[in-house]
Order: sequence, then structure tokens, then C-alpha cells
Amino acid sequence: MALNVTQKLIKDHLIFGEMNPGEEIGLKIDQTLTQDATGTMVMLELEAMGLDYAKTEASAQYVDHNLIQVDSKNPDDHLFLQSATRRFGLHYSRPGNGVSHPVHMQRLAKPGKTLLGSDSHTCANGCMGMLAMGAGGIDVAMAIAGEPFYVKMPKVWGIKLTGEMPDWVSAKDVIFELLRRHDVKGGVGKVIEYYGPGLKNLTAMDRHVIANMGAELGATGTVFPSDKEIRRFLKEQDREDDWIELKADRRAKYDLEEEINLSELEPLVAKPSSPGNVVPVREIAGEPIYQSYLGSSANPGYRDFAIAAEIVKGKLIADGLSFDVNPTSRQMLTDLVQEGHIASLLQSGARLHQAGCNGCIGMGQAPATGRNSLRTTPRNFPGRSGTKEDSVFLCSPETAAASALKGVITDPRTLEMDYPKIKKPRKPTIDVNLLDEPLSPEDAKKIELYKGPNIASIPEMDELPDNLELPILLKMGDNISTDEILAGGARVLPYRSNLPEISKFTFEIIDEHYYDKGMATRDLGGHAVVGGFNYGQGSSREHAALAPRYLGLKVALVKDFARIHWQNLVNFGILPVTFINEDDYGKLEQGNILEFTDLRSKIQQGNEFTISIKGTDQEISVRHALSGRQIEMMLKGGLINWVKDRTKTNASL
Amino acid sequence: MALNVTQKLIKDHLIFGEMNPGEEIGLKIDQTLTQDATGTMVMLELEAMGLDYAKTEASAQYVDHNLIQVDSKNPDDHLFLQSATRRFGLHYSRPGNGVSHPVHMQRLAKPGKTLLGSDSHTCANGCMGMLAMGAGGIDVAMAIAGEPFYVKMPKVWGIKLTGEMPDWVSAKDVIFELLRRHDVKGGVGKVIEYYGPGLKNLTAMDRHVIANMGAELGATGTVFPSDKEIRRFLKEQDREDDWIELKADRRAKYDLEEEINLSELEPLVAKPSSPGNVVPVREIAGEPIYQSYLGSSANPGYRDFAIAAEIVKGKLIADGLSFDVNPTSRQMLTDLVQEGHIASLLQSGARLHQAGCNGCIGMGQAPATGRNSLRTTPRNFPGRSGTKEDSVFLCSPETAAASALKGVITDPRTLEMDYPKIKKPRKPTIDVNLLDEPLSPEDAKKIELYKGPNIASIPEMDELPDNLELPILLKMGDNISTDEILAGGARVLPYRSNLPEISKFTFEIIDEHYYDKGMATRDLGGHAVVGGFNYGQGSSREHAALAPRYLGLKVALVKDFARIHWQNLVNFGILPVTFINEDDYGKLEQGNILEFTDLRSKIQQGNEFTISIKGTDQEISVRHALSGRQIEMMLKGGLINWVKDRTKTNASL
Repeated sequence: MALNVTQKLIKDHLIFGEMNPGEEIGLKIDQTLTQDATGTMVMLELEAMGLDYAKTEASAQYVDHNLIQVDSKNPDDHLFLQSATRRFGLHYSRPGNGVSHPVHMQRLAKPGKTLLGSDSHTCANGCMGMLAMGAGGIDVAMAIAGEPFYVKMPKVWGIKLTGEMPDWVSAKDVIFELLRRHDVKGGVGKVIEYYGPGLKNLTAMDRHVIANMGAELGATGTVFPSDKEIRRFLKEQDREDDWIELKADRRAKYDLEEEINLSELEPLVAKPSSPGNVVPVREIAGEPIYQSYLGSSANPGYRDFAIAAEIVKGKLIADGLSFDVNPTSRQMLTDLVQEGHIASLLQSGARLHQAGCNGCIGMGQAPATGRNSLRTTPRNFPGRSGTKEDSVFLCSPETAAASALKGVITDPRTLEMDYPKIKKPRKPTIDVNLLDEPLSPEDAKKIELYKGPNIASIPEMDELPDNLELPILLKMGDNISTDEILAGGARVLPYRSNLPEISKFTFEIIDEHYYDKGMATRDLGGHAVVGGFNYGQGSSREHAALAPRYLGLKVALVKDFARIHWQNLVNFGILPVTFINEDDYGKLEQGNILEFTDLRSKIQQGNEFTISIKGTDQEISVRHALSGRQIEMMLKGGLINWVKDRTKTNASL
Repeated sequence: MALNVTQKLIKDHLIFGEMNPGEEIGLKIDQTLTQDATGTMVMLELEAMGLDYAKTEASAQYVDHNLIQVDSKNPDDHLFLQSATRRFGLHYSRPGNGVSHPVHMQRLAKPGKTLLGSDSHTCANGCMGMLAMGAGGIDVAMAIAGEPFYVKMPKVWGIKLTGEMPDWVSAKDVIFELLRRHDVKGGVGKVIEYYGPGLKNLTAMDRHVIANMGAELGATGTVFPSDKEIRRFLKEQDREDDWIELKADRRAKYDLEEEINLSELEPLVAKPSSPGNVVPVREIAGEPIYQSYLGSSANPGYRDFAIAAEIVKGKLIADGLSFDVNPTSRQMLTDLVQEGHIASLLQSGARLHQAGCNGCIGMGQAPATGRNSLRTTPRNFPGRSGTKEDSVFLCSPETAAASALKGVITDPRTLEMDYPKIKKPRKPTIDVNLLDEPLSPEDAKKIELYKGPNIASIPEMDELPDNLELPILLKMGDNISTDEILAGGARVLPYRSNLPEISKFTFEIIDEHYYDKGMATRDLGGHAVVGGFNYGQGSSREHAALAPRYLGLKVALVKDFARIHWQNLVNFGILPVTFINEDDYGKLEQGNILEFTDLRSKIQQGNEFTISIKGTDQEISVRHALSGRQIEMMLKGGLINWVKDRTKTNASL
């Protein structure tokens, strides 16, 4: 059968399941990527699992998010991460090396491989002919430990590219066009695969831009073929041997098909506060801005900075404007320095920042109150910039640079200049020291994990007991989000590597005494919570399961669950059950005690059982949706225990 | 009479008093410098004074401290500062331009002039043949309004420099030598004036390094002559016309004399946690470090970065080390980029940060817990790095670079290489756009101050009433510091431009209800506080007077005052009085009401008077130490009101 690139990648890595869209499949993972905001917990999970040495072909830990060191917490985390990479056989990218996605692309990405990363923009490396996907931290920890990644078989959405981008239009406008057509849920359950004659006009880094923001369409991944351009890119990185050709078969089919004629595109912009809120730049030209912002994994390439530098060269940015330049990798920054582009940017008035994620994830560079910020970043969700009620627009580097000069949102086509032609650096830097190499397994064994005072190992977790009496500590309504379960933000995030500390913030928005109540139940058998529809919506943060579990949460009984939070509950050994009869929700009150008997055998025997309300005659019928594999995990107390057992018994996959 | 350079500068600017060491003199101020951490309050003071247009020859507002924008407060402050400079006729240096002191040196410093700055390292510009001094914010506001600066006539301490620095020794080691000999109080009440044949071997920027850290000796200022080297420097800045020669007369005398033979120096280092804790590097060589740190106003020059770049060129810094490079001005960063030095630093593994103060004032770059940090900054006071119980060593760029390579404190003379010779940039950048020019007085009038939600004008302050009944809200012991009156730190500092908000933290360490109690008295006539010896010791922060005043504090009655806090109380119209009989302290209790009658005439008639304790027969005899000028200020309710009146009546000096 003729296969497209996505199908080939999946077929080559299929360990479990059938390639029928919507069905669960298990994939072998060749490479992983973690960043520092999620990586500390991944490393603690590897420790808790008792991992000896990474089983992937290449796993890399990047330090790009938490670069602001106002006290010792972040530098302590960096040292912990370095020690963990040495202990577990991972690559380590030190602070200042740049953003994970472009650095990974330059140094480790390989056509034909799978990549799983604890960052939602991991999909960016789909530009290299890889199946690259973002996932929760523990999923990545599992992959490092050699376990498959389970995901629903996606539909493959073929996007045929034709034509050639006009002057002043660049890759960012291509992905904006897709977002304009399909908005932020248009890619859910799909891998977006690009093909067609227009491809030859897109460099590897242009494709990175497009693949990166596949995340904004909610896609499972974005895939480009591995063609001559990828070979050229790898050759430039002194890694031509890593190239293989990977193309769709001639008669390959796609589950959905669509075309973008690059010649018809114009500069686009996403208005506040959604990446799907796309309009032509010309429609909102003239809107005043406080800030113009270059960089991020959504515009990481040499070209992206060089074109902006050529636009502002010899000119001055607008009065009072903050022109924030965020290099994306040390290697590219060196090239930009050597080719004179950094000098052009500096002399125009730019603020040159350390290579890293920076303001893209709200680490600095927040805009002023009530002022517009124009950014080449991938996301403009409300408040993500750090400023309340912010007003962030997303755009291409061309639009950012033109607007920096004018102080208002400006269609770059209206500048009185020719479109600059960017030459490649005469002698591109190849910084092989970007990533510390893994130690050998023998040397790795000798390494002790370095833990600053804010880094706490994950406590041991009990197996699921057979009989339980669980007080209902909270009865909640519909649409409880993971932000309500465990908030993000600058107050909470510094404790991401310290479960006992971060758990103090659990459910505090709903009940400020939950922590104390939970701790009181923890050694007495634990507790339950009750909720309505769409329980656990929002961010995928795994701490929203891990922290309540730490406080003794054993069962969550709700009308229905948001998908990712449900997965996180299962991973951390909290039993998620739903009402068979939703009216039973009304029978329960905070303080009721739920009685579970023969629970272990019941969840194995079928997916429905009953719970008694202690001191009453009432019974509640509930349902679980666990697979056989998940039941096994649940009985052991969660994924960490399950892997630990497999590691001990050396079970093969 | 033969005069030294310091005496010439003072004589040329003397408005009030006699040049007898220890006596108060009033000096005309030609230039001022403010930075963003102190400047917001200065600008609010100018607003409160009703200033129309700056009366100085040149005043510049820099944005170099609060560059981390985690929310809208700092960018709002930047916009406020920009609007204030436009309103009041000041230069504005936008974020990214770099540290105030080197930028001021490059663009505005002029031999023969006086410079007053609301930053303790303002003294750095003494390298240019100026009398440059740090002061409190309102002192600088007064200078901008055309008022003299009052200070005790200093002794002049002549330091004769002979010889020439050996390889691997640089200017930083010269000032370390003086700190080694005299420690951190060795310069109190003195201006340090350098002269002698060794001067010819020190560039203008070398002298900046030495003058900068005069602050660490507690000196009133540091003065260098204006010689051919200063002419060369100004020519390089395209400002040769600003040069005048300024040298000590042939037979000039110094109040104290000392010699440093540069040829005998070796690399020195200041150990934790005082700049005076100086030893030879060789004595502590081998001490492991987490961090090596280049930059700050104490090593701001092109040479300082270039020498480090040459040392690390083609090599890799030590494993796990954080090599933080903090450019000090946009102009120098451009030169360093163009001459290839930034590429050398990047390729060695450096983290290149935005031009500014950064970690030097605890804005990021904090070291890991329990690890050593080695820095070219001027200060290593405990906790200043942001990390509790930190361990910070101060050194030269040569020592920082050598140690970055080795991962341990390293005497640079032990490197197996020749001492690099640094050439000046072939075509030095002159960035005339670094400082926005002041508007004309006509245009300035049209400007509205831009105030974000966190910026509040200073409320109007009442005149001193004739009769007062003041409850004693606090009775405190000895050695109360300004940290106890109003704390610093990341929790409080963001409200530096918002008096109503910052006042909520007043005295909270001593009495968490002080704010509420104070607010309750505010409109009923106010209140008093009672204290012991050395009241108001520590930091010079003016908010420690301004905030209690806002809450209704009218009189502070103590055994004695720390000098600077006493000055701040006077400036903000709080009457400072001391017990004539210290035993009377025992008669007073919290809650007593102090009765003041005919207070206005009493403080004018003499410096002693009596207060009654309401409801008792007791009387307390007290003393004030106000000069005639200060009595006038006190009657009007403080310096702001006093200036406002003078501005209205257009009184000349």
C-alpha cells in the first residue's frame, strides 16, 4: 500500500495497536527532549523509577525556560539537571545555548526518527522528516526508560504547497494562513503533512516555523518529507551522514486534503488573544505598539533575525518602543554576530537578550499596562506575557521589524525599500560543544544527583488498597480547570521540583484548607473528590495530579473528565471514575464517606461497580475507562511504580 | 594658594560655606544622573515641587536597574521616566543602552564640572576630572531644580601613582590595593585624588574602574586630573571640544598623602562578604566556583571584555560553570561585536546578557546555593546577589576569565599563555542616539506625565502646625535600622514609585498594625515615635522617611540619630528631636500623647524646648539640630514644599 510520510514513520515505530485513525497505538520513541521547566520533574521521575541508563538513541535536556535567577532556585535546578543528565546518560544543553527546538534540530534531529518532548512545541522538529510530538513529563520519562508512547492513531492531513512566497511574505504567514482557515482546534487528532512543489522554496528553518505552530492548531504533529533541503541543512551542520531520504509514496493518500498557494499569501497577523485570530496586517496597520519582539521557537532561524536586521539597518526604531531581540541558539547568535546583523540591530536601538525562551513564556519582557505588544512568538493567550489584560499580536519577523521602525503595526510591503535578500553565513558556526555528551553507562553509575534545598525526590506511592473509606473533601461543579486544581505563575512555578512544597497550593482557589485537610487524611487511607462535567480542563500540567495524590487523593468521582487530566490521574495512581447515573451526583455531600470494598478485583473484573455511602443505605454506581495496561498500573499505584517493577524484573517490551 | 584638582573643582562651584574640612559647604551642581530604581521617586519629587524645566547644564535619566519585566510594573516605570524626562528637560537613556556611569562618561561627562547622581557609584565619573558624587534622590531632585548640594567639606587624600602595572594586573587591582590597606571606611569624609607619573599608564576607562570603587572606601568622591588621556578619550567620542585641562597646581598640598607603586601590584581578590576583605588571588587559588561574572560599572570598559575574550578564545569554559557576560553599554557592545570579541566569548560558553546592571544589583544571575561566585562587580555584601548566605568574590576581568576556564579561582599569571595585548577598536562606535535629547522648554510644557497604575504622585504635605497632640505609636529600642522602618527586597521594591502602596510595609517588622494605626492618626493631626540610640542606621533609602510621613508621622523623639536618616527626616518635614536628659526615655510609654505648643516659634527661637505628656504633670526637654535653612524647610513641611515656594516666587539662589 502506498504510504505518506506520517504513515511510514508510524509504521516503522509501531509496537502496539493498528493504524486505524482514533485507535490507541504504542510507538517506539527514538529521541526525547526535555526543557528545564518540565525536566526537573522528569528527572525526579526517572530517579523514582530507578532508571539505570537511558534506553533511547538520544535524549537531551535543555535549559532555556528558567533563565532569570533572582535567587538560588533556578541555578540549583540547572545544577540538578546537569547531574541528572550525567547520571542517566542524557545530553545536557547548558543555559545560554538557546531554545530546545532549534538546538535539537541543529545537533540531534534525524530524518526517519521519532521524538517525544515535554514541551508542546516539540512538533517543530517535524520539519526534519521526524514524527515529533509534545507530551506530559511522565510520558517522556517513560520513553527515556524505553517504554512506548501511547497515542490515538491520527488522521493524516495533507497540505499541498504550490507557488512561491511573494516578497515580504515568509514561513510564519504560511502557518497563519492555516490558522486563519481552521482556527486553534482545526488540527486536533491529526498530523499535518506538507508536500508538493511549493516545498522547494522553503528552507529547513522555514519548515521549522510552520511545524512549530502546528501546536497552535492542536495537531498531534506536523511532518515534512526529508528531501535535498534537509540534506543541505545537515551538511551545513556537519552531519550529512544523518540524512536519509523520506518521501511519500507516489500514490500515497491523505485522510484530508488541502492546498495552499504560496504565491497568493500576504503578511498576516494574529490579533489578541488567540493564535487563531488571524487577519491581514493591512487591516490593522496603524495600531500603536509599545513593543516589537523578535525570536522564539516560532521564528528561530538565522534568516528570521537577519531579515529584521537588514530592515532596520542604518535606521532608528521608534521613540519609546522596546525592540526585544531574543536569539534562539548560541550557534546562530555567533553567525549573526559575525555577519554584522547583531551590530545593525543594536545600532537601531534593540535590546539584545540572552539566547533562550525569555518573554515567549513570560520570563521577562512583559509589556506595559494597556499597551500593544507585537511578537514573532507562537502564542498570545491572555496574560501569557506576564501583564494582566495584555494585548499581544503575533506576526512574522518582516512585520515586527517594519513596525519597530514606525512604532505602529505596519505592513512591511509599505516600507520604501527593496525586499532584502539574505545570504547564508559565509562560514556557518558549528558549535559541537552546545550539548554535553552523555557519560558512558559505567561512568554514569558513579554520579550522585545534585539536589539544592528546593529539590525534593518524589515520595514513594502506595499500591491501590482493596478496601477504602474515603471522606469527600471537595464537592465541585462543572468545568474545574487544572489552574484551579494547581495554579501556575511566578508564585507557584519555582516549586515545580519540590512536590511537598508545591502541594501546599493545591485546590487553594476552591478551598484554602484543602492542603491541611488532605494532609490529615493522608496516613489514614486518603480521601476522594467529587466533580461535575469537563473535570480537569485546561493545561496539561502533571502536578495537578501529582500534588493531590501526594495529599492522599485516591479517587476522583465526576460526571466526565477532560482527556489529558484523566491520563495524568491514571499515570499517578488516582482512580478516575464517572457516575453511571449522573443524578447520583446530587446524593453526595462534602464530608460523606465513600466505602470501597474488593476494589482491586472489581476494577479487573469489569468497568462498572458500586460504592456505598457510609452510614446510609445509598449506593452509587460508577464506571472506569481503564485499559488492561492501565489497570495494571493503577493496581501498582501508578506509572512510576509500574516501571520500577519492570526495571527490577528486567521485563522487555 | 596652590590648589589640588579637588580644591579647584570645589572652589569653582562654592555657593555657601568655607573650604574648611568638616564644615558644611553648598556646591553648584552642573550635571545630574538618575537611574530607574531611584529615578522614579526623583521625577515624582520634581512633579511635587512644580518644577518647570531643569536648571542644570545636563541631567540624564538612565534605565539600567529594573530591566527584568515579569509584569507591567517595570515597563510602566520606563514609560513614566521617559515622559518625565520630556516634561522636565532631561536626557533619557532607554533600556538596553547600558549602565548609567559608563554611558554618562561616553556622552555627557565634562572635565571641570560637578555631577550629582542618585546612585552611590556616581563617583565613577571622577575619572573625567569632575567632582562626581552620589546622593539621595531628593538631593538630586533639588540639584535639578537649581539648588546647591550641601555636603561637609572633605579632606583631600592624595594618592601618588608610580610605576607601571605588570602583565595580568589591571586597574581593578589598584583599587583593591587601596581597599586592602584601608578597608571600607578608609575614605569617609575624604575625596581621593590620584596624581603622579603612574597616571600616564592608566586609560580613562582604567581610571573609571578606580574612581567607581572609591564608593567602597566610603569616600565622598574620587578625582583624577583631566590630562591628554582624557582629551584622547573625548576625541574618540567625537567630543574633543568638551575637553579642558585640569591639573593640580605645582605646589598643591593634600590633607593626607600616600603612594601606590603600580609595578609592585599583583592580582588581588576581595573575599566574601566585604569589598575590603582583600587578599592576593594566589592565596585562595583552587577554590571551586559556580559562576564567573564579567561586567558592571566597576569593570565597564572595552578592554575589560576584550581581555577576557582573548583569554578564553578558542577554549571552553569549565564544565557546569555559568560564565555571565554583562555588557555595560550599547556602544561598547557594538565595538566588541565588530572586533570579534563577543564571538570568542560566546564560543567559549558564555551567557551573553542585555547591557545593564543585571546581577550586580541582584536583578538575576543569582548563584546556586552554597556555591562560590566570582565577579568583577564592586560589591559583595551578604545576599546582594539574590542568594541567601551567598559567597561572592570580587576580582579583575583577567582573574574572572582565567577562573572561568579552570572552574576554580585562578591566578591569571599561571595560565600558559602570553598576556594578550588589546588594540583599540579600529573604528570605535559613537552612538549619539544613546541619549534622547531634552525637549525645548516650550515643547516640554506640552508633555503630560505618563503614569501606569503603579505610579502615584507624591501627596501634598502640610506645613508644620503650631500646636500638636501626638500619640506615641511606637516606642523602640536602640539601633533601629531603615530596613526595619521600611524593608527593601523584591516584595517591596516594585512599589518604589507608589508611596500609598509602599507605605503599607512601614515598620511592619516591628508592629504589623503600624500602617492601620498611622492611617487612623493621619487626618487627626498625626503621631510620634520614640526610639533609642543610633536610630535609622543602615541604608540611605529616602522612603524610610517618606512612607512614615505619609502615614502621619510628625515627630521622631530618640536618644540619637544616624546621620543620613536624620537628613531624610528633615527633608520630608518630620521633626527630629533628641532627649536632653536621656533618662526621660523611661518616662514615655506607647500610647502617651505628646503635647506641643507654639512649636513653630519655639524651633525658631532656639534649639531646646519642652513637651508635655498629656494628662500628667510631666515635661520632657528636647533638642533639635536644625540649621536656619532647615528650620525654614521644616516650617513649610519639608524640602518639596520649600522648593515649590521658591519656584513660585522665582527666588534666585
